[in-house]
Amino acid sequence: MRPVRLGMVGGGSGAFIGAIHRIAARMDGKYVLEAGALSSDPARAQASAAELGIPRSYDDFSAMARAEAARTDGIEAVAIVTPNHMHAAPAVAFLKAGIHVICDKPLAATPDQAAQIAEAARTSTARFFLTHNYSALPMVREARALVADGVLGELRLVQAEYLQGWLADPAEGKQAEWRTDPARAGAGALGDIGTHAWQLAQFVTGQTPAHLSADLSSMVPGRPVDDNARIALRYASGAKGGLWVSQVAVGQENGLSLRLFGTKAALEWRLQDSERLILTPKDGPAQLLTRAQDRSASFRTPPGHPEGYLEGFANLYTDIAAIIRGDLAHQDRVPGLDAGLSGMAFIAAAQRSSAENGAWVEVGS
Amino acid sequence: MRPVRLGMVGGGSGAFIGAIHRIAARMDGKYVLEAGALSSDPARAQASAAELGIPRSYDDFSAMARAEAARTDGIEAVAIVTPNHMHAAPAVAFLKAGIHVICDKPLAATPDQAAQIAEAARTSTARFFLTHNYSALPMVREARALVADGVLGELRLVQAEYLQGWLADPAEGKQAEWRTDPARAGAGALGDIGTHAWQLAQFVTGQTPAHLSADLSSMVPGRPVDDNARIALRYASGAKGGLWVSQVAVGQENGLSLRLFGTKAALEWRLQDSERLILTPKDGPAQLLTRAQDRSASFRTPPGHPEGYLEGFANLYTDIAAIIRGDLAHQDRVPGLDAGLSGMAFIAAAQRSSAENGAWVEVGS
Amino acid sequence: MRPVRLGMVGGGSGAFIGAIHRIAARMDGKYVLEAGALSSDPARAQASAAELGIPRSYDDFSAMARAEAARTDGIEAVAIVTPNHMHAAPAVAFLKAGIHVICDKPLAATPDQAAQIAEAARTSTARFFLTHNYSALPMVREARALVADGVLGELRLVQAEYLQGWLADPAEGKQAEWRTDPARAGAGALGDIGTHAWQLAQFVTGQTPAHLSADLSSMVPGRPVDDNARIALRYASGAKGGLWVSQVAVGQENGLSLRLFGTKAALEWRLQDSERLILTPKDGPAQLLTRAQDRSASFRTPPGHPEGYLEGFANLYTDIAAIIRGDLAHQDRVPGLDAGLSGMAFIAAAQRSSAENGAWVEVGS
Amino acid sequence: MRPVRLGMVGGGSGAFIGAIHRIAARMDGKYVLEAGALSSDPARAQASAAELGIPRSYDDFSAMARAEAARTDGIEAVAIVTPNHMHAAPAVAFLKAGIHVICDKPLAATPDQAAQIAEAARTSTARFFLTHNYSALPMVREARALVADGVLGELRLVQAEYLQGWLADPAEGKQAEWRTDPARAGAGALGDIGTHAWQLAQFVTGQTPAHLSADLSSMVPGRPVDDNARIALRYASGAKGGLWVSQVAVGQENGLSLRLFGTKAALEWRLQDSERLILTPKDGPAQLLTRAQDRSASFRTPPGHPEGYLEGFANLYTDIAAIIRGDLAHQDRVPGLDAGLSGMAFIAAAQRSSAENGAWVEVGS
Repeated sequence: MRPVRLGMVGGGSGAFIGAIHRIAARMDGKYVLEAGALSSDPARAQASAAELGIPRSYDDFSAMARAEAARTDGIEAVAIVTPNHMHAAPAVAFLKAGIHVICDKPLAATPDQAAQIAEAARTSTARFFLTHNYSALPMVREARALVADGVLGELRLVQAEYLQGWLADPAEGKQAEWRTDPARAGAGALGDIGTHAWQLAQFVTGQTPAHLSADLSSMVPGRPVDDNARIALRYASGAKGGLWVSQVAVGQENGLSLRLFGTKAALEWRLQDSERLILTPKDGPAQLLTRAQDRSASFRTPPGHPEGYLEGFANLYTDIAAIIRGDLAHQDRVPGLDAGLSGMAFIAAAQRSSAENGAWVEVGS
Repeated sequence: MRPVRLGMVGGGSGAFIGAIHRIAARMDGKYVLEAGALSSDPARAQASAAELGIPRSYDDFSAMARAEAARTDGIEAVAIVTPNHMHAAPAVAFLKAGIHVICDKPLAATPDQAAQIAEAARTSTARFFLTHNYSALPMVREARALVADGVLGELRLVQAEYLQGWLADPAEGKQAEWRTDPARAGAGALGDIGTHAWQLAQFVTGQTPAHLSADLSSMVPGRPVDDNARIALRYASGAKGGLWVSQVAVGQENGLSLRLFGTKAALEWRLQDSERLILTPKDGPAQLLTRAQDRSASFRTPPGHPEGYLEGFANLYTDIAAIIRGDLAHQDRVPGLDAGLSGMAFIAAAQRSSAENGAWVEVGS
Repeated sequence: MRPVRLGMVGGGSGAFIGAIHRIAARMDGKYVLEAGALSSDPARAQASAAELGIPRSYDDFSAMARAEAARTDGIEAVAIVTPNHMHAAPAVAFLKAGIHVICDKPLAATPDQAAQIAEAARTSTARFFLTHNYSALPMVREARALVADGVLGELRLVQAEYLQGWLADPAEGKQAEWRTDPARAGAGALGDIGTHAWQLAQFVTGQTPAHLSADLSSMVPGRPVDDNARIALRYASGAKGGLWVSQVAVGQENGLSLRLFGTKAALEWRLQDSERLILTPKDGPAQLLTRAQDRSASFRTPPGHPEGYLEGFANLYTDIAAIIRGDLAHQDRVPGLDAGLSGMAFIAAAQRSSAENGAWVEVGS
Repeated sequence: MRPVRLGMVGGGSGAFIGAIHRIAARMDGKYVLEAGALSSDPARAQASAAELGIPRSYDDFSAMARAEAARTDGIEAVAIVTPNHMHAAPAVAFLKAGIHVICDKPLAATPDQAAQIAEAARTSTARFFLTHNYSALPMVREARALVADGVLGELRLVQAEYLQGWLADPAEGKQAEWRTDPARAGAGALGDIGTHAWQLAQFVTGQTPAHLSADLSSMVPGRPVDDNARIALRYASGAKGGLWVSQVAVGQENGLSLRLFGTKAALEWRLQDSERLILTPKDGPAQLLTRAQDRSASFRTPPGHPEGYLEGFANLYTDIAAIIRGDLAHQDRVPGLDAGLSGMAFIAAAQRSSAENGAWVEVGS
């Protein structure tokens, strides 16, 4: 497959989610990042593009949409990784230019902005994608398959939670600042993480609640957006549920979870143990499903190699690249010949000892 | 930093560890893969290189080493991802050519081969790296830092385990075949996973056992290599330890773990819960350390975003690339405009209900 | 301390909670069970008393209250272990007779019955106790002490859950029957387990919610009482909370839990891991508190000996009593001389092998 | 069943294991404790007996054996709860007197003492029981049943561990003192906890290792007994195993565990999670077995009510007895009428709110 030519709006150096999108686009080699409007500050946009080795840098996304659409080798898709209130304008511009849009969540900061995107999508030849990344994890996809297969019977109870503690104090720092500004974020915890919990429950159950009853709070005095939301859900099917999101739940780093109870079985998934699914049939013991039981084929390593496996390898490669370029700061943590020879000495000693019925032998070097 | 020009020996299409190395090299954008001798079968080598978009393909590694060394824009480093018995020859060739070597573990299949690599490394201007990937995980690096800082006091007890169950029956399949062939693998579980456990303990403790007593078994009748090894360890410091590796431990997918007990504290790490470290001071409660406590800065996401986070994002990007290229098989699992609009409807309904003191409201669409 | 003379109302043979109360009263040797009105069926009451070796059996609790109050060696306290609607009448009778009442929860089936008990208690010289047993577990008592000490700072969020699955189908059996009968139970899940969750949160936090918003359901068609309740809580302090109880949460055996988040730390306790408390300070790693950190001294074994430890011992004693009485059915599971001699042979062999630097030795017998 | 008349040797006030045996004997009401030689110090023996309400107290066990055997209502069984070196003499005396012996483990401090017990048992009409209590836990009994049923296939690998940390420093206190005295204990960790691990593995697998290779250590300088033992095991069946016991594993309170791997499935049990068994079939997901799957009927509460449940109840009963006797120190932690009325107010408020479709209502009092 020929790699997709990709552009990016937002995500200048130091940005959190932009860097994540770039790693994701690189991981399977399916994209080449060819253009960017990485910052609303032209100088910063240029510097970031240069640093990242992106060939074409633009001062603003409108110019980028026009110029790229005009090129025969222009970008085919664009990633929008700006704050919520800056999703709609570029999304509309690129959709109008016939360029596919990959947009970070939530859709927008206001219903109006959302409507603009919807209108542009309706009349565009290009497609619109929203990166609700948690629903793309292998065991979440397997959870959805289990529900669809009827393994749970009729769904009765749903509990989705997304608990964080990082905004337990008055916010500080760039990430916190725009997320607690109503103009830029639209909503607080509700938009930032509530939409993840909402989509996760929706994706896995295949159902959308018909009614809800909500209690939004700003637990930190003076905070202009919600930082805790407790929401009761009623489904048309008769199922009932709850959704609890918080950014003042101290000690919780990223406590996203989903619990489902049906007439025949229960299913539980937690982000902090993301490669496991607990399936409990009504009349039997709980089962711990792993990727060995997953059918979505959404992983790159055999069961038991946790997804961090790839990052461990990448850490070595990145340290090695630094060493090759002359930065030896971390060379002591990269295994080399000594580690290899020690491993060989270990094998030889173990074989020698075992051949002598477990005699103690010197390891040698 | 200018990306490092990389070559690869082994790792043709369908290979397991070659694909892992390529993802790792891509993840941080520090490498470009420019040359390969991906298979000992020239036709397969060519086809794999074409499929992977690698510019220069060679029929054999010797030719590759010579040719690349001769180019001004030749590769600067090579990844060797062949079976164990095929590490030494290419490693020697590239080291002699002055090209850095990144070699999969274990070092070699025989002591002789290991000695050849050692000799070549000694006289080369290039460096040799061995990808003991587990020791590059953030919490393993933090474990090492804690030991080095003296948090455990004097080390007394070490227990390293690496348990797998996939070879519990007579081996089948490509991966199993060469791993149970003494000529190609050198040793069985001992070499394949024992060296990982050995290096992990060594890396974290900073000590290498002076003596060992081993009991190697072939639990599967007729298997020509060890598939279970129980090894007692004695350190010069007076510490004692155990190392247990098995490939017949049914139900264990990849049970790598390390437990350390010192005079002041204990430390435990398990691959299946790889982002946590349990530190238990002698007189206090156990502490669950996460990346929030890690000081190695070896990760790409904030604490609580498990390392699979990146893969979830990558799964979306890869599905989206397929959709853009016309393969719609998985389009129903990629969130799009509907998910975005539903999220907006959720936010609006929650705000409306909360404003009405929790009245039940319709979600709308 | 002289043991307390105890009576019991309800709890005839085959009863669940009556047997539990008797074990509890026996465990520390602080009570002697001397009288009972174990059933409303006089014949069954007599037979049960005889079987249990209770000296004085009564046909009804009124007669028992009168007679026992009249004796100089009459009971000092009575345990009431009847269904909810049968708490008030005996409680009133014994309180009026000046006999202490130990009553199973909930207090009563109706507000009227509760008021009768309250009135009787107000005018009695005797005391009234309610067996909310979960709040008497060591780590729950420690949780309460931590909150009282201000370790959590100001309380912000409370989540109490009590999830069971045993009534997921239309109820069958004696336990289920009266619990789903509005006349006898008063409420469904709300009374049976909801009051436990309510009292647990109250006991640990030291606060009672001022307002609540509830959604009660009968998920099993035709069930006349609630089997699922989702309740939002508001405290006068500004804290907010949730309480979720269910008896249709399939696969949940007895999922009682409490999670608290304050301005300085979070605290989590789960019945299924009842001897551990997770305390997470805002800026530090989570700590796993055990009985080694508990200050309530509410346990009989050293830390690490789980509470089941006592039951393991009791299982042996009870099997041994059966053997002594001639019932040999389970003699093969009771360790005896052979186990002892095997242990001695093990010790000797281990000492011999170690003295010979780990030589393999025969274990002997 | 008529309760068994029981005597006790050792276990004076303040003793650890004697108190445990008494609770165990009381729990199911199958014993009455009628005689004791609770201490080798006659005054202490008398005082302890009085304190515990034991009718007949003896100055020494020989006198007790003679006198009790001579009574028609003498004890039928005796519990021996003295240090290891004081097991043999009383065991022999009571066996000769025809009184059943319930002896704490290990059998004795020396092989000679063990032989004396064996000889006495061989010629006695009475039986000898050894309280390896862990093997009497419900899930351990179920583990044994699963192995016996062939669920694991042929056993290949066994790993038993018993790790404690309480002797990591030079020993202090009564419990530590005799356990580290070779004359009284016979062996160190090996005898104290090693025999538990040995018997546990033996009980569950139904096999006894034929050969072993041991490495005993005294990690604490100057300690005259072993405090760490690493032992390799070989079974006649071809299975191999390991047994690791330590009393210097800091942070481990009571880490007893057993892991078994067969040709068809693996089984894991840990004391710290004693009511769960992890069964992993070779080709399926791991299953979490609980008492709902247990067939030994060795428990007193329904599944999900952890065994500590009984102790929670007992804590209330014991606090209540103290209150009745005038000690009000802990009355604030015993739920009473207020808790009951609060629970009723909760039920009423929840029903009212739910009837009004979740309106916020005041809880009332």
